[in-house]
Amino acid sequence: MIRVGVNGYGTIGKRVADAVAAQADMELVGVTKTTPNYGAEAAIRRGYDLYVAIDDRADQFEAAGLKVTGTLSDLLDAVDVVVDCCPSGIGERNRSIYEAHGVPAIYQGGEDAGIADASFNARGSYEVARGADSLRVVSCNTTGLSRLLAPLDEAYGIEKARVTLVRRGGDPSETDRGPINDVVPDPRTVPSHHGPDVNTVLSDVDVDTAALRAPVTAMHTHSVNVTLDGDPSAAAVGALLADESRLFLIPEGAGIDGAGALKDYAADVGRPRGDLWENCVWEESISVEGRDLYLFQNVHQEADVVPENVDAIRALMTDTPREESVARTDESLGVGLDSLLSDGNSARSPLAADD
Amino acid sequence: MIRVGVNGYGTIGKRVADAVAAQADMELVGVTKTTPNYGAEAAIRRGYDLYVAIDDRADQFEAAGLKVTGTLSDLLDAVDVVVDCCPSGIGERNRSIYEAHGVPAIYQGGEDAGIADASFNARGSYEVARGADSLRVVSCNTTGLSRLLAPLDEAYGIEKARVTLVRRGGDPSETDRGPINDVVPDPRTVPSHHGPDVNTVLSDVDVDTAALRAPVTAMHTHSVNVTLDGDPSAAAVGALLADESRLFLIPEGAGIDGAGALKDYAADVGRPRGDLWENCVWEESISVEGRDLYLFQNVHQEADVVPENVDAIRALMTDTPREESVARTDESLGVGLDSLLSDGNSARSPLAADD
Repeated sequence: MIRVGVNGYGTIGKRVADAVAAQADMELVGVTKTTPNYGAEAAIRRGYDLYVAIDDRADQFEAAGLKVTGTLSDLLDAVDVVVDCCPSGIGERNRSIYEAHGVPAIYQGGEDAGIADASFNARGSYEVARGADSLRVVSCNTTGLSRLLAPLDEAYGIEKARVTLVRRGGDPSETDRGPINDVVPDPRTVPSHHGPDVNTVLSDVDVDTAALRAPVTAMHTHSVNVTLDGDPSAAAVGALLADESRLFLIPEGAGIDGAGALKDYAADVGRPRGDLWENCVWEESISVEGRDLYLFQNVHQEADVVPENVDAIRALMTDTPREESVARTDESLGVGLDSLLSDGNSARSPLAADD
Repeated sequence: MIRVGVNGYGTIGKRVADAVAAQADMELVGVTKTTPNYGAEAAIRRGYDLYVAIDDRADQFEAAGLKVTGTLSDLLDAVDVVVDCCPSGIGERNRSIYEAHGVPAIYQGGEDAGIADASFNARGSYEVARGADSLRVVSCNTTGLSRLLAPLDEAYGIEKARVTLVRRGGDPSETDRGPINDVVPDPRTVPSHHGPDVNTVLSDVDVDTAALRAPVTAMHTHSVNVTLDGDPSAAAVGALLADESRLFLIPEGAGIDGAGALKDYAADVGRPRGDLWENCVWEESISVEGRDLYLFQNVHQEADVVPENVDAIRALMTDTPREESVARTDESLGVGLDSLLSDGNSARSPLAADD
């Protein structure tokens, strides 16, 4: 039983906590909050032990009627591993605290790559965890790109990948974000940091990325071009991708035309919080012109790194092989969204949302 | 003096009418409307003779207090050339009417390429007008791509261009358009029609396009990759593009971060309707990795085809050489937006908004 603490119960942390709690080989010891807001209340409602991330704020929680089990320091004393889900940059500040407690740590992709011994994606770089004392689960966009490029590189070889990322402006709960009514080059320079970040997972893949920000909240959209060494048919690429458990091919007949319908579908099939842990690849978009593959995929920024964090815990703390960890994570959460409308590309199990 | 009629006084038509009226060698005989709405009133306020596009509706205009000079048929009898600015598909229905009156016609890019003898872009295919009886000015996106790719192909040779178009959902006045809070693959298949449409102007350029639609109204955004035959520096590409009168390089120091600021700037410098006739290329984005050029550009869907329509009239009706027509159009309208903040790449004249 791996005893896990989640430091930072926000957009990612609350999802990682739920995912850890669903693992037979893990125990969620507790989660931390800095302020006694609705998130802290929700943690207690779920039965999670709440620790206060800033020592002298325990009184604020008590005053709000929220029971606190202890401080971050108490949590670190009680766990085998901590998953840092704090906002970007805070993980770096927390590192010395984790090290002082001798607790292995998993960081998120908002931190610089140098924060941890290795950058982690279950599909692209599971083996880097061997001998590491800390891991960084790469960001949602890098996770989405790594999951897609790894099988393409293995099957056909990648000469060069070029991706335009149309990023969501903010999460649904982030009312202070923008833009409104604009598509903003961000950064205005090319390439964006995403390509180099992919190389922390897939070091040999030549990839250039250009990033924009759009006034949407649900998902990121990637317009992907990959010049392959081989020249497979679009159908062959579709079959290859459909065989990946964390890639969902949106079937033509499903009537799904955007992120809104995707999220609506996820909610309809019972996904907690309407989460899409899988890359969502538009099956109709998969096209091959010569050796140039094109496709669109959507990435749910709140959710796709969640199963990766679970695998990162197992990779860091045990000798579990990749295939076994991924299978256990996927089965416990219900990862592997297959539409009943799909055209038979995949032999995966139907969705088991309540597992 | 070329006598010009504009059939359809909508988003494009009203701008083309103003541009024609500003030419020393052209006379705007009149414009048509189908309904007596605010656009019809605005035409009369500007002193344009109003013709009713649907014969039996003259009474509606009179009832609304709007003086009508005649019908479309009357307009066609009074002009040397008609510019069809009707909604997509209506041009095709109008073709037999123009032919019955023996009037050469210029259509817009929403029509199929087969509607006219040739597809026109002043930078990419001015010479196609020789001997033609009709022209189709390609769409705003195709115009933007043609203006960019033509000089790159001439200077360096294009091995392959790959463009993701993040299209505006609708114009500011189109309240019935979408999407809201979504980025929609449109079409979901790749390539979109834009690449083949570029080939109606630049037949030899290998170009694949993928298109999305975003909840914005101001401009289209293009994420452009061009694999060149040569490997120029980014600065050399910047200088090449800055030398094109219908490309505006947005300088780094200008504080322009998106389409909203671009339109605001256009209004500040006195552009009618805040129009941007030029492609707006983000100077900071111009990057070369090996032989791969990357850049972002914005295209004002309401405006960039307007100078092209003026040149199309001259190309179709006279023997004016390209350089002379473009120079006259640009000078009369004030095309050639140079920021005072630009870094000296360009030797073009400063903006003359009131010309």
